Amino acid sequence: MFEQLGLIGCGLMGGSFALALKRAKLVKRVVGYSKSPSTTERARQLGVIDVTAPSALLAVSGADLVLIAVPVGASEATFKAIRHGITEQMLVMDVGSTKGDVMEAARRGLHDHFANFVPAHPIAGKEVAGVEHADAGLYAGRQVVLTPVKATLRSNVQRATQVWSAIGAKVVTMTPEAHDKAFAAVSHLPHLLAFAFTNALTSQPEGSRFLELAGPGFRDFTRIAAADPAMWRDVLLANREQVLQQSRAFRAALSQFEALMGTGDSQALEDAIAAASRARAQWQPGAGVSPD
Amino acid sequence: MFEQLGLIGCGLMGGSFALALKRAKLVKRVVGYSKSPSTTERARQLGVIDVTAPSALLAVSGADLVLIAVPVGASEATFKAIRHGITEQMLVMDVGSTKGDVMEAARRGLHDHFANFVPAHPIAGKEVAGVEHADAGLYAGRQVVLTPVKATLRSNVQRATQVWSAIGAKVVTMTPEAHDKAFAAVSHLPHLLAFAFTNALTSQPEGSRFLELAGPGFRDFTRIAAADPAMWRDVLLANREQVLQQSRAFRAALSQFEALMGTGDSQALEDAIAAASRARAQWQPGAGVSPD
Repeated sequence: MFEQLGLIGCGLMGGSFALALKRAKLVKRVVGYSKSPSTTERARQLGVIDVTAPSALLAVSGADLVLIAVPVGASEATFKAIRHGITEQMLVMDVGSTKGDVMEAARRGLHDHFANFVPAHPIAGKEVAGVEHADAGLYAGRQVVLTPVKATLRSNVQRATQVWSAIGAKVVTMTPEAHDKAFAAVSHLPHLLAFAFTNALTSQPEGSRFLELAGPGFRDFTRIAAADPAMWRDVLLANREQVLQQSRAFRAALSQFEALMGTGDSQALEDAIAAASRARAQWQPGAGVSPD
Repeated sequence: MFEQLGLIGCGLMGGSFALALKRAKLVKRVVGYSKSPSTTERARQLGVIDVTAPSALLAVSGADLVLIAVPVGASEATFKAIRHGITEQMLVMDVGSTKGDVMEAARRGLHDHFANFVPAHPIAGKEVAGVEHADAGLYAGRQVVLTPVKATLRSNVQRATQVWSAIGAKVVTMTPEAHDKAFAAVSHLPHLLAFAFTNALTSQPEGSRFLELAGPGFRDFTRIAAADPAMWRDVLLANREQVLQQSRAFRAALSQFEALMGTGDSQALEDAIAAASRARAQWQPGAGVSPD
């Protein structure tokens, strides 16, 4: 389908995309660039990329598909670095967890080539970073949210849909604003809460003793706290207004629980837990989203 | 090892204990009682218990081992119901997630037989309740916390340690107070946060649409929100002071994160996330606890 993938950021997300395309025989050659030359070189040794490029611009040169897989805060600088290498037929995508800020960065950074860019957010990941953990199956069965705008080339949106579908992902389309609002609620806030919970626990004098007693509930609840600090710093800053709004709604719900505990209102407390328990038990990953 | 297990509460936890003892050939006969006769009958049909008893007292009669597996709020009534059936050689245990309140209930409910009772909290569970999900392997490789006090028969503590070890659990001993403090931090607060988060999300007008986009991070973070409402109502009420104290520490940590997001202090935000990420990545289930 593609001759050459230019990969900017040879980490877990970018490396997994390259491996998935290779496995599906959707690309002939992958040229990769990472900020750290040792990362780029390791990606080549692992067969994730075929050729190392000394700059983002050179990784893009000659490519018909470009994937930008860097922390969202580095988006604008990356767009500016590759702008002069973008050709008319090129499909440029990212994998960032926020979309409003990335679209703004693309407008500023890509100028005339803004229409080539199809913003993408695959709902996938691992709590280990780095190209060593890249996995051709990372996106299989996962949702990928595309957030094109009016100016985005329709043909590129179609090609983006095809390539993600071809590696097993389910493509959903929405506006950048709707994306950021929804993911503040279902992803960014849970990460924030898991970070805060973990720090509150470990900063107690007896924290490490407590940790020895933690079981499977703790394990799953805090799994996302082990996420990549640079990536999540950028996400929380880029989407801060939506995240802070979700945090206020969460605090209100927490206060309600605390009030019921304080007054000992046993039935109301059970009802509130039952509401959460029912909602969670009924939830299905990607429920209601048709795999188009 | 035991002739007869008297099981009060034929649910997930109690049923799994009965199955584990049967598989390890540690008990000849299991007599079970549940508040709901249909539950008791289903436990018999599934082979979890051998004989149904029409009352808690009759389930205890003739047993040399008794396991009480009911919501902790029902502990005192259960102790009172079985008091007159307890003999000198009987080992009585529970599986409650709180220990201070259960010990008080045992003192009040068991009177002269208080010394027979060895409080136990196995750090295991599933987000599905009911005897249908009982599993002989539920406790294998899990920690079990025993919280005996001075008055507790030493021989019973030894026998309790032996029986849990024999079904593959790692036994840890501490005071009821230390137990409740630690589990407020590593288990009860996470449940409270997961309940509050889920309710805050689903009570939003767009909540169900957001839920369709939730991915694996959400799945793991909220898994414990699907827990049994009656059980967790009792836990949050029984240990409310410790849980509320942990919640205050959590809120302070959350406020710190929100302040860093608000001021856009990128480096401090990354440092705070990195602290959580490091702590979680280094954590090992049951680390540092010797399987004695």
